[in-house]
Amino acid sequence: VPLSEFDLIDRYFTSSTGPRDDVVLGIGDDCAVLRVPDQRELAVTIDTLVAGVHFAADAEPEWIGHKALAVGLSDLAAMGAEPAWATLALTLPQAEPAWLGAFSRGFSELALAHRVQLVGGDTTRGPLAVSVQVHGLLRAGAAMRRGGGAPGDLVYVTGTLGDAGLALLAEQGLYVRDGCLGGLREQLHRPSPRVAEGLLLASVASACIDVSDGLAADLGHLLRASACGATLYLERVPCSEAVRDYVAETGDWSVPLAAGDDYELCFTVPEEKQAVLENLALDFSVPVTWIGLLEPQKGLRCCQADGRQLAAVPSGYDHFAGGD
Amino acid sequence: VPLSEFDLIDRYFTSSTGPRDDVVLGIGDDCAVLRVPDQRELAVTIDTLVAGVHFAADAEPEWIGHKALAVGLSDLAAMGAEPAWATLALTLPQAEPAWLGAFSRGFSELALAHRVQLVGGDTTRGPLAVSVQVHGLLRAGAAMRRGGGAPGDLVYVTGTLGDAGLALLAEQGLYVRDGCLGGLREQLHRPSPRVAEGLLLASVASACIDVSDGLAADLGHLLRASACGATLYLERVPCSEAVRDYVAETGDWSVPLAAGDDYELCFTVPEEKQAVLENLALDFSVPVTWIGLLEPQKGLRCCQADGRQLAAVPSGYDHFAGGD
Repeated sequence: VPLSEFDLIDRYFTSSTGPRDDVVLGIGDDCAVLRVPDQRELAVTIDTLVAGVHFAADAEPEWIGHKALAVGLSDLAAMGAEPAWATLALTLPQAEPAWLGAFSRGFSELALAHRVQLVGGDTTRGPLAVSVQVHGLLRAGAAMRRGGGAPGDLVYVTGTLGDAGLALLAEQGLYVRDGCLGGLREQLHRPSPRVAEGLLLASVASACIDVSDGLAADLGHLLRASACGATLYLERVPCSEAVRDYVAETGDWSVPLAAGDDYELCFTVPEEKQAVLENLALDFSVPVTWIGLLEPQKGLRCCQADGRQLAAVPSGYDHFAGGD
Repeated sequence: VPLSEFDLIDRYFTSSTGPRDDVVLGIGDDCAVLRVPDQRELAVTIDTLVAGVHFAADAEPEWIGHKALAVGLSDLAAMGAEPAWATLALTLPQAEPAWLGAFSRGFSELALAHRVQLVGGDTTRGPLAVSVQVHGLLRAGAAMRRGGGAPGDLVYVTGTLGDAGLALLAEQGLYVRDGCLGGLREQLHRPSPRVAEGLLLASVASACIDVSDGLAADLGHLLRASACGATLYLERVPCSEAVRDYVAETGDWSVPLAAGDDYELCFTVPEEKQAVLENLALDFSVPVTWIGLLEPQKGLRCCQADGRQLAAVPSGYDHFAGGD
């Protein structure tokens, strides 16, 4: 018996994530009704993942559910916003209970971990795709913007870069090594958005962006918005041992700089706040690494260990530019 | 030269709809940042239109842009919310400037008419689909819900029903008549969401829903949420002359009751507020028609002009139930 659309929504999504008392009306009416506290601003972002573009059509549905929410949470993190609510527009070729159950589990576990409540959605028949909008709360005026950086500010990044990119190369059979790459797959398929880190950084960072299209591309957006340039010190770019080995063997910097899907935060800090940042990072065990410097001269320069500049900076993913 | 994703977004969407002073940060950062006034609640809804399901792949892009926003505005209308902001997730097989220009025009014209600002989006390569989330503002506690109806309340509907459904039959060549059906196409392709009407009705209606899947299905949702049933008087259901002719000729009530895409409001009013409603409707020229009565007995009964009940109530569209 085919499930009806309404059964579907009821069964998998109605109460999949816990109640928040700022949800006046959740799933099941024409709109959700939500309460934004006084003195708070609302941060919103929408992202679509398409089968065959962002994930394989036969990818684990639990990963798809996780990642569909994670990419939006990463955007909230980049603003320094506290996650609150999500809506989900799910387009499916058919209604398979096993697939839906696993998808919903991946989505709900991450939602619960960040106190996000699913408040609305739309389920449609069509080629597999998932759009998620996330909503977060900010102290009024406290948003970290891309455009707040100034020459002299220090460029930092959280975590390590390139793990997801290397895992993808390994999955595609384009990079083969004994063992040891399995651990990176978690970064590719179940990224952990830096939500807590974003909240902490909001008090010290002058600008911030999340690294979803690769460091070079995303830092490039920050630079354009801040109307300045930067030098990046490649030997300082934090990488796992596997990625360091890959770069050493191949000389290919595109994995840590341009492969994307890192979901780390790249942010800038005025020099006078560096000590505050480093103390915050120590106190709260946030892995942050200083990797470069904002400069008046436009553009991004990548300085190698020997002092020479990388001739061409690897660029990020662009859906419509015909390459990756 | 293929347009890059960023060029695309810049060219068609960055400032396509006018500025609102409650938009702290619009398109171009990781999130939009929005200000919800004190004493207001936020109403949100997300809807997806998929090529081949909700519209033909070669449909006029201007219609697609219009309709993608209209369906969400209709949901806001059903809550009695004032439209404020929208986000757009657009999935495209390729970036065609002519298509994008027309899509954006259809979207923007409707947005402007309702003072809606586009504040964020995501553009992705893939099978053509559009997800739009709209955000509206409500006086705290004033939302019209589906579940507020009670036995004895009068059932009303705005406008006329079945025009879009008949236009679709005509386009598909399933219903042929001399002339006169052309005017209905506007209802199908460029529906006018009943936003102003929803705002007016919020003070008198006990429950409300928008008619997108057909009156029978949508009133059915209202009845289940309100834990009651209803009798509908078919000869009172407001129809254009073309739809009345169609029903008279064919005896088929599914066009006005179940064809969907009407985007009218179906609402209920307690008997003691009927006079207030009728006066409001007169004063503001809102076309409303009394069509039935809520009753304690569950289910929907359709009473014909001769007093007999329709044997089977036509049902609405369900994406996963295998029919239309």
